[in-house]
Amino acid sequence: MQPFEQPEYERRLERTKDRMREEGIETLFVTDPANMNYLAGYDGWSFYVHQGLIVSLDHDQPVWVGRQMDANGARATVWIDHDNIRPYSDDHVQSPVGKHPMDFVARVIEEMGRGDTHVGVEMDAYYYTAKSHQRLQRELPEATFSDATLLVSWVRVVKSNREIELIEQATQLSEAAMQAGIDAMGEGVPESTVAAEIYHTLIAGTEAFGGDYPAIVPLMPSGEHTGTPHLTWSDEPFSDGDPVIVELAGCRHRYHSPLARTAVVGGVPDEMKRVSEVVVEGLNAALDRAEPGVTCEEVELAWRESIARHGIEKEDRIGYSMGLGYPPDWGEHTASLRPGDETVLKENMTFHMIPGIWTDELGVEISESFRVTANGAERFSSFPQKVFPV
Amino acid sequence: MQPFEQPEYERRLERTKDRMREEGIETLFVTDPANMNYLAGYDGWSFYVHQGLIVSLDHDQPVWVGRQMDANGARATVWIDHDNIRPYSDDHVQSPVGKHPMDFVARVIEEMGRGDTHVGVEMDAYYYTAKSHQRLQRELPEATFSDATLLVSWVRVVKSNREIELIEQATQLSEAAMQAGIDAMGEGVPESTVAAEIYHTLIAGTEAFGGDYPAIVPLMPSGEHTGTPHLTWSDEPFSDGDPVIVELAGCRHRYHSPLARTAVVGGVPDEMKRVSEVVVEGLNAALDRAEPGVTCEEVELAWRESIARHGIEKEDRIGYSMGLGYPPDWGEHTASLRPGDETVLKENMTFHMIPGIWTDELGVEISESFRVTANGAERFSSFPQKVFPV
Repeated sequence: MQPFEQPEYERRLERTKDRMREEGIETLFVTDPANMNYLAGYDGWSFYVHQGLIVSLDHDQPVWVGRQMDANGARATVWIDHDNIRPYSDDHVQSPVGKHPMDFVARVIEEMGRGDTHVGVEMDAYYYTAKSHQRLQRELPEATFSDATLLVSWVRVVKSNREIELIEQATQLSEAAMQAGIDAMGEGVPESTVAAEIYHTLIAGTEAFGGDYPAIVPLMPSGEHTGTPHLTWSDEPFSDGDPVIVELAGCRHRYHSPLARTAVVGGVPDEMKRVSEVVVEGLNAALDRAEPGVTCEEVELAWRESIARHGIEKEDRIGYSMGLGYPPDWGEHTASLRPGDETVLKENMTFHMIPGIWTDELGVEISESFRVTANGAERFSSFPQKVFPV
Repeated sequence: MQPFEQPEYERRLERTKDRMREEGIETLFVTDPANMNYLAGYDGWSFYVHQGLIVSLDHDQPVWVGRQMDANGARATVWIDHDNIRPYSDDHVQSPVGKHPMDFVARVIEEMGRGDTHVGVEMDAYYYTAKSHQRLQRELPEATFSDATLLVSWVRVVKSNREIELIEQATQLSEAAMQAGIDAMGEGVPESTVAAEIYHTLIAGTEAFGGDYPAIVPLMPSGEHTGTPHLTWSDEPFSDGDPVIVELAGCRHRYHSPLARTAVVGGVPDEMKRVSEVVVEGLNAALDRAEPGVTCEEVELAWRESIARHGIEKEDRIGYSMGLGYPPDWGEHTASLRPGDETVLKENMTFHMIPGIWTDELGVEISESFRVTANGAERFSSFPQKVFPV
């Protein structure tokens, strides 16, 4: 069932261990579901209970820890030996008797002989709660702890060719879903109807393959709400003149290809066309700037200089590293295209660049997911860069 | 845009403050998105960045804290005065300069004159990370802290009539989506095609209203994977003889009505029919037991005694309190139908009861969401309680 060959997982693990050695971390406890998938292949909607991977410099394979009920899911998806799947009993789940899954994790770490090591934990990762940390510290009194929040995430930044292939497949889903959304929109059509068409296309997929659930639901703020980027759809109908910003991502084996476009119900006003041309020019100026050796902030600067030529001054994060992800985010939380980010671009890094311009009356967002190649940025999608009348 | 009248939010806040007084908590910091919605009405896919509500015994209204970009979304959805919307700047997000949103939260709590109070935090709630707690503690050196993980969640346990109405609407979506899934299934049909039909129905909704995204994606383990409840769909086709367990929930204004049924591709074998009759008998025995004054564990016992009459012995959590939710869970993490849970049922508590029986060869799950009424449990759905041939 794994989308990658075992040697690819082993290389990921080796690179992770290299990073651990650099940081002086002997044992790493990984809870971010994307990092768990990246290292072990584990895939399942089980991150609503506590789970994690234990990576030890002294052990060949990571150890999966999760709920008893999910051990079969682990057996079905991971490449590691099934001896290394260590389930905890169900009375640890939202326990009325005061048990916590981290008590069990601590026991496993001790059994591995790692109870007195330097343990890295993902302090600011999704699903590693304050309580988890408190309990793990209490139960491993001989261990020392340090923050390894982005350790694995940084290993993920440069993609393999197989990962690129999955993002390319996800792109086919993104483009089809964007088209389905645009085709469905119109005066009097409820937002939920459009969201339903988008979802259907994202998941039904193509003749060749189906789609996964995206880490973020399709977002489509419209009308007066285009300035509220994270409002989800309602069942209100679109009105004539409503601008609509659609942001979505196809997902294939948990790899995403985000895409945003702007539409207007009834027809695109001249002012909006003008603003969209500024956005597209700036977007492409920034894409043109991206190549190996250039920094993230230099890419953002190309956007900023481009829009400044049209009298617009703003300083934003216009993009971020993306790829593998689970709810609530497909962003990797590592490199950002923004002032102050001196990350140097390398081949096969992948970003979602999503700049926008808002005036008091209107907003335009047009985005591209791209890959850094030896020859510069390569867009994943070829969806037209314009505002769509619907 | 709010699905409730302002007095309902005010009553929720008052009940929360009563709980705070009982626990000696003067200031409560709420990060669970469901709790934020419950108290303030806030709704948006912004929980991938840090955010929260500050509830103070000395202040009439909660204070919303979140990312600058989401302040408009807060203005569009909350009932509280817009003065009480306090956004932090974007350089706090995945910050390259070492800023953390909790630094800002601490400043707001201090400005409110609450920096030296007893602060309750949701230590084990989604999205309250180990780092968040570490920073909040560091930045509020005069405060004392205690764990208030389920404080608001317990306030949510008994539903209002309007909340029940929304779960009833969600039930219409659940039933339609279950039927759509069953209709779409068949030999050779990819799992992703069925998932797409289910999603389309969940969101397109009925003539009267559209649906929200559910807090958990539709789950449909099939074939040899029916024992892996949290595997999501693949694009593999169903085969003749495959059992399929479908678990889904319609969602209306973030209120859910979960429903699970089992289907078999090609026809239902006799052994499966027999097992399903045992499940249905046990399910209904437990539903019959549920009424005000009875404890959660007594409800589970009715199930256990019923299946024991057929020679089956197992002791499980067979259900949980449900309602308002965001990814990754529609469960409320409070009352569970399991041994040891002595929570006493009250009118208008709502549960999802999802028992199942697995043998070495097969598994059957049939669930009901129900409400406790003066006359006993009332099922939300009237979907047939059987295994479906598809």
